[in-house]
Amino acid sequence: MKAWEENIRKVVPYVPGEQPQKAGIIKLNTNENPYPPSEAVERAWKDMEIEKLRLYPDPQAKLLVNALAKNYGLMPEQIFVGVGSDDVLAMSFLTFFNSKKPILFPDITYSFYDVWADLFRIPYKKMKLDENFHIKKEDYYQENGGIIFPNPNAPTGVEEEQEILEDILKKNSDVIVIIDEAYVDFGAKSARTLLEKYENLLVVQTFSKSRSMAGIRIGYAMGHSKLIKALQDVKYSYNSYTMNMPSILLGTKAIEEKEYFEMTIEKIIQTREKSKKELKKLGFSFPDSKANFIFATHEKYRAKDIFLYLKSKDIYVRYFPLERIDNYLRITIGTEEQMEALFHALYEFQKERE
Amino acid sequence: MKAWEENIRKVVPYVPGEQPQKAGIIKLNTNENPYPPSEAVERAWKDMEIEKLRLYPDPQAKLLVNALAKNYGLMPEQIFVGVGSDDVLAMSFLTFFNSKKPILFPDITYSFYDVWADLFRIPYKKMKLDENFHIKKEDYYQENGGIIFPNPNAPTGVEEEQEILEDILKKNSDVIVIIDEAYVDFGAKSARTLLEKYENLLVVQTFSKSRSMAGIRIGYAMGHSKLIKALQDVKYSYNSYTMNMPSILLGTKAIEEKEYFEMTIEKIIQTREKSKKELKKLGFSFPDSKANFIFATHEKYRAKDIFLYLKSKDIYVRYFPLERIDNYLRITIGTEEQMEALFHALYEFQKERE
Repeated sequence: MKAWEENIRKVVPYVPGEQPQKAGIIKLNTNENPYPPSEAVERAWKDMEIEKLRLYPDPQAKLLVNALAKNYGLMPEQIFVGVGSDDVLAMSFLTFFNSKKPILFPDITYSFYDVWADLFRIPYKKMKLDENFHIKKEDYYQENGGIIFPNPNAPTGVEEEQEILEDILKKNSDVIVIIDEAYVDFGAKSARTLLEKYENLLVVQTFSKSRSMAGIRIGYAMGHSKLIKALQDVKYSYNSYTMNMPSILLGTKAIEEKEYFEMTIEKIIQTREKSKKELKKLGFSFPDSKANFIFATHEKYRAKDIFLYLKSKDIYVRYFPLERIDNYLRITIGTEEQMEALFHALYEFQKERE
Repeated sequence: MKAWEENIRKVVPYVPGEQPQKAGIIKLNTNENPYPPSEAVERAWKDMEIEKLRLYPDPQAKLLVNALAKNYGLMPEQIFVGVGSDDVLAMSFLTFFNSKKPILFPDITYSFYDVWADLFRIPYKKMKLDENFHIKKEDYYQENGGIIFPNPNAPTGVEEEQEILEDILKKNSDVIVIIDEAYVDFGAKSARTLLEKYENLLVVQTFSKSRSMAGIRIGYAMGHSKLIKALQDVKYSYNSYTMNMPSILLGTKAIEEKEYFEMTIEKIIQTREKSKKELKKLGFSFPDSKANFIFATHEKYRAKDIFLYLKSKDIYVRYFPLERIDNYLRITIGTEEQMEALFHALYEFQKERE
């Protein structure tokens, strides 16, 4: 080993969901939206003045911030935007979790929380979800340096009631509580309405799922203007320009297109509810999902075997070989046609084994 | 102060160059390219399949990486891409500067180096440039945890000879030496040709200046495949998807457009050389610039007064109220017409004061 190699940071690289480039596959493994962005986004794209690309983008992304504020009935000072919700969440860890006490999050949750905590040397404790994958609120009564969890949770799709959130917020008024709402638009209740009551609350959302724009990389946080100011100060202190011009323009347009947004959400919810019935018929069980995926286990067959079979049929779902969830599949809700193809494949799988 | 406020990270926010939104101003303050991206980039933009925005972008940005590799005669394994060179540089600090010994960089240099060092708790020492703003190579013979400097330097525009770089690389084979080449395309010599000889060298470049695309946010590093692998591992460990689909597509097209690139560079160099003569006639002196800006001081008038006068005439240049350079202006090279307007204003400024 060379001398300089000793000083290289040692990490465990994250393994993202497969992004197969083959044509004709059915991709139900990374919770993308099966529907494209609206035609208005496409028009904004075509109308963009390419000449302006020679200039730095507005570091404050004011157009987008204002559109989000208007959409949610908040002040622009209550909105922070970043390059995907991963960027917003990592920045929030860096900004708010500077206590020596451990931050708390569930044992089954988004896989980047412990990664960011390790990266920024933030102590943490994982709180075990109950057997139905629900939070035990008493776990969050202990002394801590901050709290974060997704609602609905990933990869389970389970929603916690607002009373649980409020109870946790009240019992933790001395720290920041982050609710990661990547999947909230698919029928769950947003904690956004609690912002007026709890200034220690930060709500984080994304354009990657409900807004059909994973390819543009936009996430945002909503909270008290003091929290947003703190996030901005940290961000501007070390990297002022990260959101590019296309993101600002197309993101703004997507937010303004409320009707199209609601229509695609409605379609996905309908397909999800139908899929729940079909999966039950096929022998699966799952916690009730409020997200754009279903986290399912089969009464008879191993999740891994089903996963490999589906892959051989060019249907990609997500399998996590992790404690407590290694017999589950996370199945993204696609179009009606894609789900039909999935059910057919699952039926064939069982027929071959009977 | 609320309890949670105590745990907020305290920072000194960076103040970027002004981005006035007024129409009709002459903007020579942030080193942007006065020429737009090529027509081929515009065509690629119009042809983009907006439908694909619903999918996550390729986290490895292979299209762009391959185009860069081909352009520079390197292997794809020798290229790392990020969201602007700020992203690439910050990631490089995090990846390579993990020694307990201080890293070294010049006292007059890009203003983010000490910010990143502070952020990641990397000890550092600033080495004083000589009176002509040149590096004293002996300063870099001492024990250190890594070295970084821009070449040409910012905000001086001064280029160091390849022999100086090679001397520093040889004397520091046990650490990583990063050459930040944001401005190299405007007539300086790239250290890229030294990559075969020195595996401890990392060369960082950007699309924001010579490639007319500050608005798209693309930077890249070139180095030994072992260095690139280390950068990728750190990046993927905590934020896999940051470069969005438009960046990948338009960046790729811009790199393929060699002829247009060379033509705009040539125009800027010609305007710069002409500007040097004009500025001398107007009583300015400056170190010889190999960048797309001139770092000039006046024999008679204070830089700050000139800066304010120009601003009142809607001409924006950059003024840094910092030790050793607070009587200098950094003037971006614009179009011929923009520079004429600048010279005219400078002439008027002096006439009013005679």
